[in-house]
Amino acid sequence: MQGTSGPSVKAAIIGASGYTGAELLRLLTLHPLVSVVTVTSRQFEGKKLTDVFPHFLKSPFSELQFEPYNSEKIAKNCDVVFCCLPHKASFPIVKELYTINPELKIIDFSADFRFKDPKTYEEVYGVEHSAKELFGKATYGLPEINREEIKRKSIIANPGCYPTSIILGLYPARVKGLIDTSFPIIADSKSGVTGAGRKASLSFTFCEVNESFKAYGVEGHRHAPEIAEKLNLPAVRFTPHLVPMNRGILSTIYFKTEAKKEELQEIYREFYKDEYFVRVRNSPPSTSDVAGTNFCDIYVTKEESTGLAVVISAIDNIGKGASGQAVQNMNIVCGFPETTGLELFSNWI
Amino acid sequence: MQGTSGPSVKAAIIGASGYTGAELLRLLTLHPLVSVVTVTSRQFEGKKLTDVFPHFLKSPFSELQFEPYNSEKIAKNCDVVFCCLPHKASFPIVKELYTINPELKIIDFSADFRFKDPKTYEEVYGVEHSAKELFGKATYGLPEINREEIKRKSIIANPGCYPTSIILGLYPARVKGLIDTSFPIIADSKSGVTGAGRKASLSFTFCEVNESFKAYGVEGHRHAPEIAEKLNLPAVRFTPHLVPMNRGILSTIYFKTEAKKEELQEIYREFYKDEYFVRVRNSPPSTSDVAGTNFCDIYVTKEESTGLAVVISAIDNIGKGASGQAVQNMNIVCGFPETTGLELFSNWI
Amino acid sequence: MQGTSGPSVKAAIIGASGYTGAELLRLLTLHPLVSVVTVTSRQFEGKKLTDVFPHFLKSPFSELQFEPYNSEKIAKNCDVVFCCLPHKASFPIVKELYTINPELKIIDFSADFRFKDPKTYEEVYGVEHSAKELFGKATYGLPEINREEIKRKSIIANPGCYPTSIILGLYPARVKGLIDTSFPIIADSKSGVTGAGRKASLSFTFCEVNESFKAYGVEGHRHAPEIAEKLNLPAVRFTPHLVPMNRGILSTIYFKTEAKKEELQEIYREFYKDEYFVRVRNSPPSTSDVAGTNFCDIYVTKEESTGLAVVISAIDNIGKGASGQAVQNMNIVCGFPETTGLELFSNWI
Amino acid sequence: MQGTSGPSVKAAIIGASGYTGAELLRLLTLHPLVSVVTVTSRQFEGKKLTDVFPHFLKSPFSELQFEPYNSEKIAKNCDVVFCCLPHKASFPIVKELYTINPELKIIDFSADFRFKDPKTYEEVYGVEHSAKELFGKATYGLPEINREEIKRKSIIANPGCYPTSIILGLYPARVKGLIDTSFPIIADSKSGVTGAGRKASLSFTFCEVNESFKAYGVEGHRHAPEIAEKLNLPAVRFTPHLVPMNRGILSTIYFKTEAKKEELQEIYREFYKDEYFVRVRNSPPSTSDVAGTNFCDIYVTKEESTGLAVVISAIDNIGKGASGQAVQNMNIVCGFPETTGLELFSNWI
Repeated sequence: MQGTSGPSVKAAIIGASGYTGAELLRLLTLHPLVSVVTVTSRQFEGKKLTDVFPHFLKSPFSELQFEPYNSEKIAKNCDVVFCCLPHKASFPIVKELYTINPELKIIDFSADFRFKDPKTYEEVYGVEHSAKELFGKATYGLPEINREEIKRKSIIANPGCYPTSIILGLYPARVKGLIDTSFPIIADSKSGVTGAGRKASLSFTFCEVNESFKAYGVEGHRHAPEIAEKLNLPAVRFTPHLVPMNRGILSTIYFKTEAKKEELQEIYREFYKDEYFVRVRNSPPSTSDVAGTNFCDIYVTKEESTGLAVVISAIDNIGKGASGQAVQNMNIVCGFPETTGLELFSNWI
Repeated sequence: MQGTSGPSVKAAIIGASGYTGAELLRLLTLHPLVSVVTVTSRQFEGKKLTDVFPHFLKSPFSELQFEPYNSEKIAKNCDVVFCCLPHKASFPIVKELYTINPELKIIDFSADFRFKDPKTYEEVYGVEHSAKELFGKATYGLPEINREEIKRKSIIANPGCYPTSIILGLYPARVKGLIDTSFPIIADSKSGVTGAGRKASLSFTFCEVNESFKAYGVEGHRHAPEIAEKLNLPAVRFTPHLVPMNRGILSTIYFKTEAKKEELQEIYREFYKDEYFVRVRNSPPSTSDVAGTNFCDIYVTKEESTGLAVVISAIDNIGKGASGQAVQNMNIVCGFPETTGLELFSNWI
Repeated sequence: MQGTSGPSVKAAIIGASGYTGAELLRLLTLHPLVSVVTVTSRQFEGKKLTDVFPHFLKSPFSELQFEPYNSEKIAKNCDVVFCCLPHKASFPIVKELYTINPELKIIDFSADFRFKDPKTYEEVYGVEHSAKELFGKATYGLPEINREEIKRKSIIANPGCYPTSIILGLYPARVKGLIDTSFPIIADSKSGVTGAGRKASLSFTFCEVNESFKAYGVEGHRHAPEIAEKLNLPAVRFTPHLVPMNRGILSTIYFKTEAKKEELQEIYREFYKDEYFVRVRNSPPSTSDVAGTNFCDIYVTKEESTGLAVVISAIDNIGKGASGQAVQNMNIVCGFPETTGLELFSNWI
Repeated sequence: MQGTSGPSVKAAIIGASGYTGAELLRLLTLHPLVSVVTVTSRQFEGKKLTDVFPHFLKSPFSELQFEPYNSEKIAKNCDVVFCCLPHKASFPIVKELYTINPELKIIDFSADFRFKDPKTYEEVYGVEHSAKELFGKATYGLPEINREEIKRKSIIANPGCYPTSIILGLYPARVKGLIDTSFPIIADSKSGVTGAGRKASLSFTFCEVNESFKAYGVEGHRHAPEIAEKLNLPAVRFTPHLVPMNRGILSTIYFKTEAKKEELQEIYREFYKDEYFVRVRNSPPSTSDVAGTNFCDIYVTKEESTGLAVVISAIDNIGKGASGQAVQNMNIVCGFPETTGLELFSNWI
């Protein structure tokens, strides 16, 4: 669909050889209004994209080559930049690109601009932030909770995958004041393995992950403060787990509430009725319902005997949890219809 | 994308609640020129499509309901029918629909019209064929080998999944006379589990398939005569195996040849140079390169010490091996560009 | 190892063709003091064991044949009976066997004798219990919490798989009075697919489970009252989930406590120091650490910011969660060393 | 079972932190006549065994610690050494140990002493062999084909995993002269991922292997000459494939023969009737039948239309294909009953 007439923005992808980069490229093959002009990778610099990702043979991107990062070239030739680097690696590059071209729209996949205050970032990530002055230009890119802010900013901090699933799962109840905060809120999350990123690591080799299930980050995980801040809560108990599958996050969330089951269900349904990418479900979702898509499927219920609401929230961690959400954010900042290129449904099986 | 302006054909899917039906629906959400007006299912008759397939919530098909099969309604209201029934169940329905409306285009997923001669069918499937008179209206729907024939026929017999991978893998060598037929041709194929269809069965429960690998149909499989007929060979040794994954067929094919490696590679590349859906590769493909797509990825090489050519051919068994190919065939019979709605790339991970 | 000298008890397995039956047989190939004389199965009656389970070729059981259930034969010829039937199917058989031979030791895998009071059973399972008079002869078979009782009883109600993991994970804290019961206790459990039993079912076919993760029984599950009763708690919030793997349960358990992390860890370590089958860990366990074994691996920690203790408990659902525990119970009722035949370590990969 | 009375040999495992090392340790927990006194690992030197392999907590090996390799200590204190190193790393160590103590029994997992002639090794592996003089002390450790030789030698070259499955699958037909060698013999093999060894590598990370199937080593694999030599054949066409599962190899082997199906089946059954570890099957085996065991399950049939015999041979690649076979070889060289510690049956599910 590339190359058809109509308006078109030029995009660069920095760090395009990882899982989020590959997913972004896949989604953009279906986007009629974007052309990818530059992909960078340190590891695969000089290689053809299709030598690294042969599944893109015959795609609109089949002639791309992984380039070294060149700030001038990207900042001057592109309208949008997707920065798919890890935290700490990202802010110097964002700063450089912004300095060269303040008109550039930057979608940053890292945690570097997610917090309201750089101090929180420095505490949580244990890193000194050298682009503090850009926080005023940046915002958190979860459109369902701050779409208007996104439209006005240059740097969009694409949310973490776990926070996306958990914030969307708690937001209606939080906004409506239905959460009894005298009891801790618990988010027990389970993620597919793409969440670990694309790197050689003994812990993520096939045999060590396959046919096993475990919790990790049990003593504390960096996504907990991100969740707490966005929900304006003092603390959230967050336990991530690793599921032997590629894609998907399912968060099972517990909070104390006076609200009844039907009331909760009605409130969630009403709250998200105009949000295309949130599907409030009549029954608990599976991650396979959303794999490969930008949907967040949510089910809410209540157990009277314990007074607990239970929310089940499912996303694709590299879809709505990363690259899908990045495209959604790009659509917003570029003024495209928000669902452009994202009306994709799960392969399911 | 449904409901946009432009020409549109109306389609029915008979037996839409299986894996090929679900995949067809998924592909058609991306097809700009087709609207699905009827889906039938005996098992789920009366249920909403999204109760059975919640992954289609918010899709263009979210209001569809599984209906009982009604030949009059389908034959008179539709332009194209996809018949996703098993062999023997299919021919009475094809006959009925054709009798009511000979203008209807019928894409049949079963084996019922795949052979040139009904006698072969009766021998291989052990079934009496009661619609023998329709063989003149039918053709084998493998566009890369008989596109012109497909354009002229009303009933398109969508090929078997294994035969698709094997025929495409052998066709250039066969046509060019490079196969030494004094030695048996061997196709050792490995399939994901969707190939078994969607049904409750102890043999295909998760635990009995997971973490295991086996051959089946070792004494003979119905796809062997289909392969042999289309390649005009007396016999082919075909051994299918079951891989613990959802999608994909990889066929490893051996034949004796005088041709050299480079010669073979050049011939294959040249033979398929205008076929969008066949990607002749420089290195052996993985099934994940083609999962969710209509591509057939092929690699050919030669071992001088044994005189054997080795062809590795990968497809998605429910993509190019079933529903993708059905859409390709529909595009041909409807006069649409052949790749319409099929320029999709693999999720890869 | 069968047939060596030394004392030997004769065992029957009723309903031996399921997953728990197969696992029990596997474990008993390594038990020096038991011979299996009868295996029954309705579905496979008359078939050789090795036709159904070819992995037992050349085992001590290779000559066994699945027989119809014959109460006289079993009650009179055997010392121990393993009854691997579902709830409701079990109590009539237990009653019949007990009536014929009150000396028989019966290990019942079902829920039929797990509760203290038949009324609770009738409420939870919605079934009238017609062997209420046997509750006095029965006890709950979780040796780590009631070993002495097991020694004195004829009918041992083998615990549910989820309750085993959760009760062992909470027991030390409960006994020591460390759980603040003014807040609900939450057990978020994740199970492999063998937990669903061996039956043809669309919901558990490979493709519908593979590459997906979901919660089920969200509105209430029968294991919750079993857990609450054994821990003497009014209610426990229990959410089970299905993991795409064969074996293993991991329960992530949350409770409010005043206790400190180190205090909890010391108490757990001390509490289980003489229990061979409970391994209190220094770091969170994976299910692969315990797959194929009778171990329960437990890790406990505390999050000061929320005041929550977090316990991670891992078992093999058909090991310590079913057949392994059954062998442990058999060892106790037969007066064998409790670890006999169970000193097996995980395949790990 | 360690520490019981009776004769006992002392064993060392060099390179014990890989998959074959872990499997060997697991098998030796069940061996009554061996105690493991030393485990070495460069990567984990100084760590407790149970810090690296927590699944061995409470095992007889729970107090072991990974040590640096010390030739004097091992050669003088041990009776048997298992050398689990890759090719080229192994022969200097074997040489050193043998030189210090020629009475030592060395089971070598590498390819370094598998060929009859060091020249073949040097050609195939492209390495100069500096312990050529030891070939006279060494033999190929496939007991079913050269048990007597094994008894007489000090260095046992444990066979490759693929060769084990293929040689056992072809041996009866080859010995009986039933293979028509005017046509190439084809071995199409499929392996689980443990075959790749335990190392951080992008190619073997979970997401890149999961839900995919591929061939590799298509232009030639080092196991082909090993197979050809042991079967005294000029060449064998061998194609390995990677299956998304942990354990197991299934080889599908084709050869031309005049023999009939029943004749072949009878010959195979007769040939292996006294071999405990080879189970000639009535139907094609699955890899799950043999996972975790030392069995090789074989099925043979014949297709008259193509004149091809088809042999299906299944092993656990790290069982009979590596560590199980190593224990079997140890039993032989130590004069123990050959099945000691190996009468284990598959977990199956």
